[in-house]
Amino acid sequence: MQHFSDRLDAAIRAKGNPICVGLDPRFDSIPKFITEAAIQSKGDTSLARALAFLQFNQAIIDAVSDIVPICKPQIAFYEELGTDGICAYESTCAYAREKGLLVISDAKRGDIGATAEAYAQAHLGGPTSPFNADALTVNPYMGRDTLEPFLKTAAANGGGVFVLVKTSNPGSGDLQDLKLQDGRFVREHVAQMVHEIGRPHLSTCGLSDVGAVVGATYPDEARALRALMPDTYFLIPGYGAQGGSAQDAAAGFRSDGRGAIVNNSRGIIFAYKQAAYSQHGERGFASAARAAALKMASELSGVLNTK
Amino acid sequence: MQHFSDRLDAAIRAKGNPICVGLDPRFDSIPKFITEAAIQSKGDTSLARALAFLQFNQAIIDAVSDIVPICKPQIAFYEELGTDGICAYESTCAYAREKGLLVISDAKRGDIGATAEAYAQAHLGGPTSPFNADALTVNPYMGRDTLEPFLKTAAANGGGVFVLVKTSNPGSGDLQDLKLQDGRFVREHVAQMVHEIGRPHLSTCGLSDVGAVVGATYPDEARALRALMPDTYFLIPGYGAQGGSAQDAAAGFRSDGRGAIVNNSRGIIFAYKQAAYSQHGERGFASAARAAALKMASELSGVLNTK
Repeated sequence: MQHFSDRLDAAIRAKGNPICVGLDPRFDSIPKFITEAAIQSKGDTSLARALAFLQFNQAIIDAVSDIVPICKPQIAFYEELGTDGICAYESTCAYAREKGLLVISDAKRGDIGATAEAYAQAHLGGPTSPFNADALTVNPYMGRDTLEPFLKTAAANGGGVFVLVKTSNPGSGDLQDLKLQDGRFVREHVAQMVHEIGRPHLSTCGLSDVGAVVGATYPDEARALRALMPDTYFLIPGYGAQGGSAQDAAAGFRSDGRGAIVNNSRGIIFAYKQAAYSQHGERGFASAARAAALKMASELSGVLNTK
Repeated sequence: MQHFSDRLDAAIRAKGNPICVGLDPRFDSIPKFITEAAIQSKGDTSLARALAFLQFNQAIIDAVSDIVPICKPQIAFYEELGTDGICAYESTCAYAREKGLLVISDAKRGDIGATAEAYAQAHLGGPTSPFNADALTVNPYMGRDTLEPFLKTAAANGGGVFVLVKTSNPGSGDLQDLKLQDGRFVREHVAQMVHEIGRPHLSTCGLSDVGAVVGATYPDEARALRALMPDTYFLIPGYGAQGGSAQDAAAGFRSDGRGAIVNNSRGIIFAYKQAAYSQHGERGFASAARAAALKMASELSGVLNTK
């Protein structure tokens, strides 16, 4: 079975950019013609909201699937709608896959033993798995043994994981930047763990199926973490709305311009609300998203030293 | 609105024990007469599995709701079944509430900003929330600002959170037991943060709505953490199947025998599989669960110094 990292590497080469589109729908930000029709049809219910999410996502996926390699639905926004939302999440993952996008399930799961196995099966279990994603974000706080079930299920299905190392939020330092007695930071300890557990999962492209989440909002830290994880795929959030620039995001890449993907959620999917894309209008939200993705691709190619 | 910690304190006094029943259904451990009937009716589908979970849980809840204060469904086992599983999770939470049990949604969620708000709304948002739990387990790795949305939503709805501090698994020390430059352990740093953010959420009973997860498998650590978090409700996993004894669990309580709940999942819900409860038979699985809960209550009351 082909490794996740090989598939990701090939998709990035094919599309010519390392953009991950975050599918984080929010009812109040979705064009009114979609949300109003959903409410008219199903009332002001979670089913109406979930259907609006799905219709919105499908249009975004249709608009970007030929130009970006990967997408990342954030499950929280769907979980908020309960059963109906999870159904829309399943359908979103399936639709993105059908359209040739790789899918990261952004769920930041983490738990012990059989519980971690259940989460792994939910997200990374292959065709019998409800979400059947290519990769999952996971939280390392509970320890290495809690990551193993995710790695095992991922390996069995050609999938991957991205372990939280240095997140993009202002308070990420509360734990991640604590200094240990041996002089390292907690985030560096986690990075070394990710590097170690990733070694047996290296693929042909020279990168591992065990990736790391490293925010674009901390470029200096990203550079230091890259040195500790030379073969690790970075998932870089924090670009755009959260304040990270293309130059900041580039800090997480390897010197050969590979080994990372940069996520953008609001900046792409809700581009139609920005003045720069207002000519698309509300009904042109999907073409605005496409234009924003192309602009981001050009910004990244300006700073990445790819051969 | 009444505080979560006051409601929990009152429930513990009313039932006379601090037991939390973990509702962690596993298809292969549920009595055959339930699983076979479900498959006969719905085929070997996730719907059949989800219906079996719900039928099993309802019988367990019926058997223990008059003798224990609180239950804790673990969402991973339901998420594994996708949409059908989440529907069973919603129904399980609702049924437990109807029967007078407090409900902890064991989901160990954690994320930034609007994403954390969405999770909080899913689990702690009150009557308009799909799961409408009384409390939620949360992961602190991403920092204090990622806990705030949970606290805010909990406070608005009389709910609580339990922050992971020292978990019960063998590898919990990988991060939690790292020693910081200032001599403290990471788990102690998290404990102090939990204590601090919990102070504004103290209730009439003298305990906070911001609780901590502290495993029964590490009693020495639990005693030290109790000193750092004198007013914090502990949720203590690891009792029974994971190796923690009543004496071990007692280490997390305050000296007045209050301030903690002890979870038991397999040891109660699957008691019918143990030799000690074999007289109940497979069809008596619910009465076996009740007997196991009563035995656990008696074991705890033997070691807790309650007045």
